[in-house]
Amino acid sequence: MNIAALYHRPESEYAYLYDKNTMHIRLRTAKGDMKQVSLVSGDPYLFHKEEQFGQCEQMKKIASTDLYDYWWIAKEAPYKRLSYAFVVESIVGIKAFYGDHGVFPFEDRYLQMANNYFRLPYFHEIDRVQTRDWVTKTVWYQIFPERFANGNRENDPVGTLAWGSKDPDRQDFFGGDLQGIIDHLDYLQELGINGIYLCPIFKAYSNHKYDTIDYFKVDPAFGTDETLHTLIDSCHDRGMKVMFDAVFNHMGDTSSQWQDVLKYGEDSKFADWFHVNQFPASYQTTGDFEDAQELTYDVFAFTPHMPKLNTANPEVQAYLLEIATYWIKTFDIDAWRLDVANEVDHHFWKKFRKACLEVKPDLYILGEIWHSSQSWLQGDEFDAVMNYAYTDAIMHYFVKKQIGMGKMISDMTNQLMLYRDQTNQMQLNVLDSHDTPRLLTEAHGDKQLLRQVIAFTYLQPGIPCVYYGDEIGMDGEMDPDCRKCMIWEEEYQDLSLRAFFIRMIAIRKKWADLLSRGSWEWLTMDEKTGLLTLKRRLDDFTLIAHFNSGDLPQRVQRNLDQTVEISELVNEEKTNFIIEPKGFVLVSVENS
Amino acid sequence: MNIAALYHRPESEYAYLYDKNTMHIRLRTAKGDMKQVSLVSGDPYLFHKEEQFGQCEQMKKIASTDLYDYWWIAKEAPYKRLSYAFVVESIVGIKAFYGDHGVFPFEDRYLQMANNYFRLPYFHEIDRVQTRDWVTKTVWYQIFPERFANGNRENDPVGTLAWGSKDPDRQDFFGGDLQGIIDHLDYLQELGINGIYLCPIFKAYSNHKYDTIDYFKVDPAFGTDETLHTLIDSCHDRGMKVMFDAVFNHMGDTSSQWQDVLKYGEDSKFADWFHVNQFPASYQTTGDFEDAQELTYDVFAFTPHMPKLNTANPEVQAYLLEIATYWIKTFDIDAWRLDVANEVDHHFWKKFRKACLEVKPDLYILGEIWHSSQSWLQGDEFDAVMNYAYTDAIMHYFVKKQIGMGKMISDMTNQLMLYRDQTNQMQLNVLDSHDTPRLLTEAHGDKQLLRQVIAFTYLQPGIPCVYYGDEIGMDGEMDPDCRKCMIWEEEYQDLSLRAFFIRMIAIRKKWADLLSRGSWEWLTMDEKTGLLTLKRRLDDFTLIAHFNSGDLPQRVQRNLDQTVEISELVNEEKTNFIIEPKGFVLVSVENS
Repeated sequence: MNIAALYHRPESEYAYLYDKNTMHIRLRTAKGDMKQVSLVSGDPYLFHKEEQFGQCEQMKKIASTDLYDYWWIAKEAPYKRLSYAFVVESIVGIKAFYGDHGVFPFEDRYLQMANNYFRLPYFHEIDRVQTRDWVTKTVWYQIFPERFANGNRENDPVGTLAWGSKDPDRQDFFGGDLQGIIDHLDYLQELGINGIYLCPIFKAYSNHKYDTIDYFKVDPAFGTDETLHTLIDSCHDRGMKVMFDAVFNHMGDTSSQWQDVLKYGEDSKFADWFHVNQFPASYQTTGDFEDAQELTYDVFAFTPHMPKLNTANPEVQAYLLEIATYWIKTFDIDAWRLDVANEVDHHFWKKFRKACLEVKPDLYILGEIWHSSQSWLQGDEFDAVMNYAYTDAIMHYFVKKQIGMGKMISDMTNQLMLYRDQTNQMQLNVLDSHDTPRLLTEAHGDKQLLRQVIAFTYLQPGIPCVYYGDEIGMDGEMDPDCRKCMIWEEEYQDLSLRAFFIRMIAIRKKWADLLSRGSWEWLTMDEKTGLLTLKRRLDDFTLIAHFNSGDLPQRVQRNLDQTVEISELVNEEKTNFIIEPKGFVLVSVENS
Repeated sequence: MNIAALYHRPESEYAYLYDKNTMHIRLRTAKGDMKQVSLVSGDPYLFHKEEQFGQCEQMKKIASTDLYDYWWIAKEAPYKRLSYAFVVESIVGIKAFYGDHGVFPFEDRYLQMANNYFRLPYFHEIDRVQTRDWVTKTVWYQIFPERFANGNRENDPVGTLAWGSKDPDRQDFFGGDLQGIIDHLDYLQELGINGIYLCPIFKAYSNHKYDTIDYFKVDPAFGTDETLHTLIDSCHDRGMKVMFDAVFNHMGDTSSQWQDVLKYGEDSKFADWFHVNQFPASYQTTGDFEDAQELTYDVFAFTPHMPKLNTANPEVQAYLLEIATYWIKTFDIDAWRLDVANEVDHHFWKKFRKACLEVKPDLYILGEIWHSSQSWLQGDEFDAVMNYAYTDAIMHYFVKKQIGMGKMISDMTNQLMLYRDQTNQMQLNVLDSHDTPRLLTEAHGDKQLLRQVIAFTYLQPGIPCVYYGDEIGMDGEMDPDCRKCMIWEEEYQDLSLRAFFIRMIAIRKKWADLLSRGSWEWLTMDEKTGLLTLKRRLDDFTLIAHFNSGDLPQRVQRNLDQTVEISELVNEEKTNFIIEPKGFVLVSVENS
């Protein structure tokens, strides 16, 4: 028995309040090591009254990785408090007892020591990580505003290039704006998306607007406050939510605050707004616009034009929180996506959440973090992160062929087990974005593979997000190439692909509750044939999805009670599905 | 190699900012499994410039438990941000690479993937867990006010018994009060303690005062506001800090708020101040004053007289925070000890810390938690907890003989590894209290054993605390017996024991920095002979302490450069110490 591999952490993703009265408890064991795992639990104050304490309940093995099995149980408690520990039984039948003071032989004398138990001292609803119901029902559409549509030629910046006249370079402008988005809301509605995630629209120097000059102004090349009001109100009229993107880690160096620091140095009233290690703030250029040496101030990466904000300074906090709440109060936005969120302090994000939720209690807060994010996802900072760490596993298997099927599922499981179930339900599963190559390019132009990956991803816990243009077959390498102008001429759009997206988005919305909250289980994981079957289940329904990721057609059994929700490259026989390579089929079943 | 036993958690006790510029990084491996562990690290934005990334640095094995080895390194970063991962090498020379996406073979292709690295995205001083310098230099003295000294017979409650006339029962009063403490400040100063921790002094029904009636009033049997001012000012004049004890989990049922609920039920303006599950609030008595059945409201344990406060209610929060700050503002108290702290919500404790520290930035906040406390000790709730979980290990080995030496050190190590070093430095290492049997009673009256345990505990990381009367040889079973009247007649005090406490307290204060911040290493752990040697080291000095916990005298080498700080039952030969059973010797060495 590998007892050194046992892991549990009280009050974390391993033990948390799931709903008002139910705890979810997880235990990690070495893969294949345990035959059975049980929870021993009871009320802490009834510990010494044996008849009321200590019944064993079997836990369920819910997931496995290359190294671990994860066991789970849902547990209520009549007095809203719980002492608990684990009894593990190895495949050869050896039992051990694991609690707050470590691992002991399975003997009464250890089970009878109250201090050997983990505790959830009281079920506090106010400490519970809460989902937003609307969030789990949303399919987002990410727009890079400078490249989506040019709806107003009056506000084009000097030197604007003709729409789509070339592949974009770092400093090109093509005239995309808010009116362009308004003009295409019918298009988006037809697609079925019900949330628009806008890359920054605040006044900034660059085309990407991540170098904010003025957080309170719509960039004049994008439109006016009125245009923005029209856009957001129109979205809301259509049942679409709107997410804004904010960069609170740094400002643009052409902002008035930074210019003041450059001018007055230590005497600037903004001297402590940034992290200037030595005055005057200066750097040596390397020739690269986004790289510098001998910086005397902290910046994003090594970009001299993005001085890092000192979010520990109460003045800066007040300023940023005013911005955060201004756009909610004045424009009624529904969500904030936070750029480089991991480099800003936790102290600030806690204040940020509090300030925002006081104005709009069901606001969705999404952080841009690419690595493990537990410390931001405890319920008092972000609801979710851009879930690249999860979709990376999908990309590495299906698209880049860098890992095997088992490793993909292992990596996905590892990610899910880092967070509470509520958090997993709100994660944004981006397959590509303005910061990555486009999916189609990663797939070397293989649209059938793209369809398979989209279907696979949309059936996962978490929320899908379409990067503008993916749905009509746009491609693009790493930025700036992934930020090409949206193609609006239907003859250049892949309408069949668009129809596929429309169907998948409809399916994700139809099954939103099940796909968010349902169980997650692999019925088939056949590394050799490439057949992969995912089962999701909640209450009255089960979804079963078969994916053929191999090179030969695969036959799977078809039951009479199954309704086909969608299929691609599948021969639907009476009692079988014959699935071609890169094909898949999704069926629903009403549970009897 | 047991790779399933590897554990690291970014932004936790495994990776945290220790001082402004230094991270402490820990890694857990299976015991005896690894020959060597290294850190691979660099700036996240220099990852692809190989010459600046990826140098390996050896980590140090700092501690071991029965299951694990813990490895550690201190790390600075020129740009205040770090990507890092681990290279482990097993005892047979197999290497593996462990990072944010799991464990991989030690091959360049895995080391070269940026996403495989853990991150500390930016060193934020504002997020750092901070020690209080004065706290690490304090030796506390815990007073149960009703039993320390009766300084004013005018305020004795009706039915007060003669001082020390009998062993206490649950509902006895003996007349102890604040004037009694004032009268004996010379005594406490002579003892050398520099902090007084007072059990609750607010108006309450019982002798222990944990059933508060009015949080804004000194209990009339204890004195007046004036007496309290005199006490606290006198303490401060003598360089002693004062810690108050507050019960924010519940109130007494004779409080006006609860009485209002009983009277008006759902219509009471305090109806939502508690957790009443069904009106009218009621219960069935069991005959036991502290036990009830069929409670229709939540209480502490099953005690019907202690209705649980609803700390999620903003009115209750405002009320409790007013109390918390009132005593700091008006009486200048230095610390709060929080009763049943684990059963109050985190949300409230974060507000509590913020409110208190705004008034007094170096206030010490100590929670009563007996189990693993990571979620309260992240820097934004408590500074420390009553460290029973740590001292339990000491008690179980030295006093109760329930575990072996190896298990004791294993348990102590487990506890230290649950928290950041800064937290360990502030933990309150209580060996006994008003909630446990007295140390001398647990030791079956063996005062030499008591001395050994006291010395052993005072040399640990964390802060010592003397429970009133322990220093003069008082005994007592579990409460109420551990709450006997303090003995003031010198002929009944053990003056030799008191002299020992005076010496140990002086030693703890003299070496406060070293004992707080110094390294912690076992030079000898001889399960067979019972010889145990602890080494603590910081900067210019090393302390070495030998303890004989066996049955036969033990000889240890004595070096010429060693200065004996204290010894008990030791024959100090020129080049040896002969240590009798239950004896010990502490020497200091100036590092060359």
